[in-house]
Amino acid sequence: MKCEEIRIDRYRVTMKGENMTEEQKSLMKYVDHTLLAQGATWKEIQQICDDAIRFGTASVCIPAARVAEAKAYCGDRMQICTVIGFPNGYSTTETKIFETKDALKNGADEIDMVINVGWVKEQRYDLVEEEIARLKEACGEKILKVIIETCLLTDEEKIRMCEVVTKAGADFIKTSTGFAGGGATFADVALFAAHVGPEVKIKAAGGISSFDDAAEFVRLGASRLGTSRLVRLAKEQ
Amino acid sequence: MKCEEIRIDRYRVTMKGENMTEEQKSLMKYVDHTLLAQGATWKEIQQICDDAIRFGTASVCIPAARVAEAKAYCGDRMQICTVIGFPNGYSTTETKIFETKDALKNGADEIDMVINVGWVKEQRYDLVEEEIARLKEACGEKILKVIIETCLLTDEEKIRMCEVVTKAGADFIKTSTGFAGGGATFADVALFAAHVGPEVKIKAAGGISSFDDAAEFVRLGASRLGTSRLVRLAKEQ
Repeated sequence: MKCEEIRIDRYRVTMKGENMTEEQKSLMKYVDHTLLAQGATWKEIQQICDDAIRFGTASVCIPAARVAEAKAYCGDRMQICTVIGFPNGYSTTETKIFETKDALKNGADEIDMVINVGWVKEQRYDLVEEEIARLKEACGEKILKVIIETCLLTDEEKIRMCEVVTKAGADFIKTSTGFAGGGATFADVALFAAHVGPEVKIKAAGGISSFDDAAEFVRLGASRLGTSRLVRLAKEQ
Repeated sequence: MKCEEIRIDRYRVTMKGENMTEEQKSLMKYVDHTLLAQGATWKEIQQICDDAIRFGTASVCIPAARVAEAKAYCGDRMQICTVIGFPNGYSTTETKIFETKDALKNGADEIDMVINVGWVKEQRYDLVEEEIARLKEACGEKILKVIIETCLLTDEEKIRMCEVVTKAGADFIKTSTGFAGGGATFADVALFAAHVGPEVKIKAAGGISSFDDAAEFVRLGASRLGTSRLVRLAKEQ
């Protein structure tokens, strides 16, 4: 047994009820603990809230129709994140603005919106930027994350979107909805880190399935990780 | 060659520019010609509109962010159908109502909404019914179709939803979004036909890939077919 392994092993003995390493614990602070399955029940959402609080994640990310219940349940113990224009991003700007205000009224602390990918494909970056800016205006001090759905974009389009998200004043750029057939990749997070402005943080989401991958996403520049699997792994330890 | 085949063969010779049979042509009147891909461009939507007009479908079914453009383009030549709370159905009732009014204002003639499947799983049929009734109120004389996402429901839940959709006063019950891993089945359309009220029509959607299947859905009781493949098949003939 190497020294490093002995150190980790000793540490595990001293922890209460869990066998997580310090690194794993610290990664939890990056997690938006997410349940966005179409048929999710309140009981399942409640479990997500309980686990998020227990493991100290950054937020729970849940459907808009569950925000009011989750806020009432969590109070100040957990940040509530929800999704707007999700997952296809082709509702109107007016609807996305209403949906955002409605979510904030219901107690949401963070808003993850999906861009209109069709507009990107048409090079209508003006419309995309205006929509993001208007949603940021609706959010005020609350956090706005912008999902650009990387698996549908070329690298050139991803770089343009880094610029658009920066100019529009959003707080985060986010890789994926998890519903379009592809999730976060190391390459995309590195690309974001190279092209977003200094004020824009990065959220990797979709398919993050191990602590090692999570650590690598953070090393590459991600400030948030959208996933439910890290908490599941933690519970299994 | 059998008599029937000769008859069809002769008929084909007499048609202008297309090799569709009379039955295939008549099936087009049932079709909501659909393009709901996340990255669809206006050029693609425009093509959908052109094809729908050419083949005489019931409507085009397109993203909400494209309704105004499509209405301006089609005028009275085609009914415009769009989707609300799509595809996951877990936006709030308030947002679905706003989204519906916004779509109607932009020129939509028909509204396909998705129910909150989580509420069904919790047996909160009161909430589901109230939501549908409020959307129908927002629709007025315009058609409201209710997508219950059959692939996520038990037969018992499907039957309950037939009753709920009937009580709530919607115009159609619809099988599927096409985004949840399963589409229309003959068994589900037959089940709907046996359990909805006489005022409620049936729309089969998702995975309809041949004229034979389309004819069978109609025989079983469907009044609408949500698909893009029939037009594609027609164009290949």
